[in-house]
Amino acid sequence: MWSDLADVGRAPAGGYRRFVWSDADLTLRNWFVQQANDRGLGVREDRAGNLWAWWGDPTAGDAVVTGSHLDSVPSGGAFDGPLGVVSGFLAVDRLLEAGTMPDRPIAVVAFSDEEGGRYGIACGGSRLLTGALAPDRALALRDDDGLTQAEALRAAGRDLASFGADPEALGAIGTFVELHVEQGRGLVDLDAPVGVASAIRGHGRWRFDLLGRPDHAGTTRLEDRDDPMLTQARLVLAAREAAQRHGAVATVGRVRVEPNAVNAIPSRVQAWVDARADDDATVRAVIADIANAVGVGADEESWTARVDFEPVLRDRLVTTLDGVPVLPTGAGHDAGILASVGIPAAMLFVRNPTGVSHAPDEFAEAADCLAGVDALTTVLRDLAWV
Amino acid sequence: MWSDLADVGRAPAGGYRRFVWSDADLTLRNWFVQQANDRGLGVREDRAGNLWAWWGDPTAGDAVVTGSHLDSVPSGGAFDGPLGVVSGFLAVDRLLEAGTMPDRPIAVVAFSDEEGGRYGIACGGSRLLTGALAPDRALALRDDDGLTQAEALRAAGRDLASFGADPEALGAIGTFVELHVEQGRGLVDLDAPVGVASAIRGHGRWRFDLLGRPDHAGTTRLEDRDDPMLTQARLVLAAREAAQRHGAVATVGRVRVEPNAVNAIPSRVQAWVDARADDDATVRAVIADIANAVGVGADEESWTARVDFEPVLRDRLVTTLDGVPVLPTGAGHDAGILASVGIPAAMLFVRNPTGVSHAPDEFAEAADCLAGVDALTTVLRDLAWV
Repeated sequence: MWSDLADVGRAPAGGYRRFVWSDADLTLRNWFVQQANDRGLGVREDRAGNLWAWWGDPTAGDAVVTGSHLDSVPSGGAFDGPLGVVSGFLAVDRLLEAGTMPDRPIAVVAFSDEEGGRYGIACGGSRLLTGALAPDRALALRDDDGLTQAEALRAAGRDLASFGADPEALGAIGTFVELHVEQGRGLVDLDAPVGVASAIRGHGRWRFDLLGRPDHAGTTRLEDRDDPMLTQARLVLAAREAAQRHGAVATVGRVRVEPNAVNAIPSRVQAWVDARADDDATVRAVIADIANAVGVGADEESWTARVDFEPVLRDRLVTTLDGVPVLPTGAGHDAGILASVGIPAAMLFVRNPTGVSHAPDEFAEAADCLAGVDALTTVLRDLAWV
Repeated sequence: MWSDLADVGRAPAGGYRRFVWSDADLTLRNWFVQQANDRGLGVREDRAGNLWAWWGDPTAGDAVVTGSHLDSVPSGGAFDGPLGVVSGFLAVDRLLEAGTMPDRPIAVVAFSDEEGGRYGIACGGSRLLTGALAPDRALALRDDDGLTQAEALRAAGRDLASFGADPEALGAIGTFVELHVEQGRGLVDLDAPVGVASAIRGHGRWRFDLLGRPDHAGTTRLEDRDDPMLTQARLVLAAREAAQRHGAVATVGRVRVEPNAVNAIPSRVQAWVDARADDDATVRAVIADIANAVGVGADEESWTARVDFEPVLRDRLVTTLDGVPVLPTGAGHDAGILASVGIPAAMLFVRNPTGVSHAPDEFAEAADCLAGVDALTTVLRDLAWV
């Protein structure tokens, strides 16, 4: 099953490039439908583009849902997202083999566009589903080739008129449990293959548009220049210093230079800052410090307040799994989006030996992945059978 | 004639994007052939892709050649390059009208790929022509889409086997005079519409490959990071400081980030430095200072030593043009490449009211452009009639 995915959306530079509505994404969606069909599960794509495989009645309103996402960042790893979907299907296999019908319906979901690799907004599918992201805004987003999401949806044969929030699909969820590869070394330090999430730190993305005056790199005197690349450099250093000062993290992982020619002083440099911290006010303070350092305001492209996962559900998972460790994460997840609208949600993490994620070297040992499937099976059985 | 070019290769972001072997470039080449045909001039494309329009015998070896280039930087202006080609044809028109055959053949040339906007090497056409750029290296260069120049040449129907130096075409040149819009405000300060070049400052392009460890922007602790964007920021500031210290100019106009995702610490950032100074040792000192500041060596992508234009020819132009001013430039030109292999070469500059170049706002007044055509006509008559 894992090997079906190994060659989908491989990036020339290494790792995977599985952007929403790309050919790779459509191939992965077909794979999901095939997996559901093979198990006799009913398939539905909701109005936000998320895929659901149903064992039982989607209208009951108390379903136990698991899953994650299939898309990736550019040059992403194999585990971030697909591990949760594959583990969901494998857990369902074990429960099907047991031969009894669950008391609550079970579903495996593949959320659309979790990474925001194409349009810049993370958790696009779950944000649309809950209404946190307006469809008009989502449709107007442009990728790096200037193509809007509306154009990409049309090319993929989707109906634009119905694109957006889907209260019916959302209302089907009773409990959500997402399994995910850990994106740090917390479980390595704790010497445990599997853990349960306590919280997602507050995090967001901000874009700084740094404007200058385009000019010839060879003939313009230094004192006559207005070069936005210098501002970008100060911004990158200011972001690191502000993060250090506040006990947060801040990263400039993406820049865009216009015209990006060796012999031209840029007219504009755009720099994106990803900032996260234990509490929301700290993230805001970091961004304010950066804006202050460069004298340019920030455009907030996305923001997710700190999410504490529902403690009763969290404790139930820990007990069911014989006291596995509990740990927070700095990474955003669809489970956090669902939790933020009041759905009981929880997460299971699988140990990542190097902690590396969003990169081709992302890895998890096969034994740990199987321990994750075991844990997820146990949790689903506990939640779906009374 | 000027209006024929106004719509070719317009960039969506403003200005022109006329990269070698692109559709825009092929359209401009067709325009050149048409202009030559309209005047009864013989057309030849040499082995390096440069276009020639001949009035007289190309094999005589003492031709008076004028011209410039038709390609542009990304988001370039309308004048840098085309002004010299158009002025060449207009000067030939006036000389044809006079009704006498020149004693020496006259040619208008459009050099290929002067800006290096697609493959990163400036003056590609004249460097290939003279043998300064090896065809194997030129063919293997890749554009931002990963396409090699060999592939682009094949798509444009060019013969790869013969691509490279062309001693026959080079040997035809007795004297070369390039007319170009000024890329600074020297002639504004001197209150003159036209000037003659004294020298081209030493200049080159260096690429710094800054490596880091790709990782998740949200979950990796600051102290565990190896983020090459921080090195890039230090490099940009070090380049400005080194240029200031040495009385040179240095610019980081182009960067490339991998994977360039908001939520991923980059695996690699490439930064290109364009540096220029009056003497070659100063340029070398600037690059050494930058390399030292970031602890990474530079890859030299191109280098052009200072060129002093042939003084006898330069003085003859000044005298013929009744004492127009003489001024140096920090910009590289095909005339400099020809001068560096011992061909008597000279340049005429046309006043640029703002000094802006390599940007959509690049401009020259119509009256100054006509003064340029007058001057070029006078110079060609002086050189081609004994």
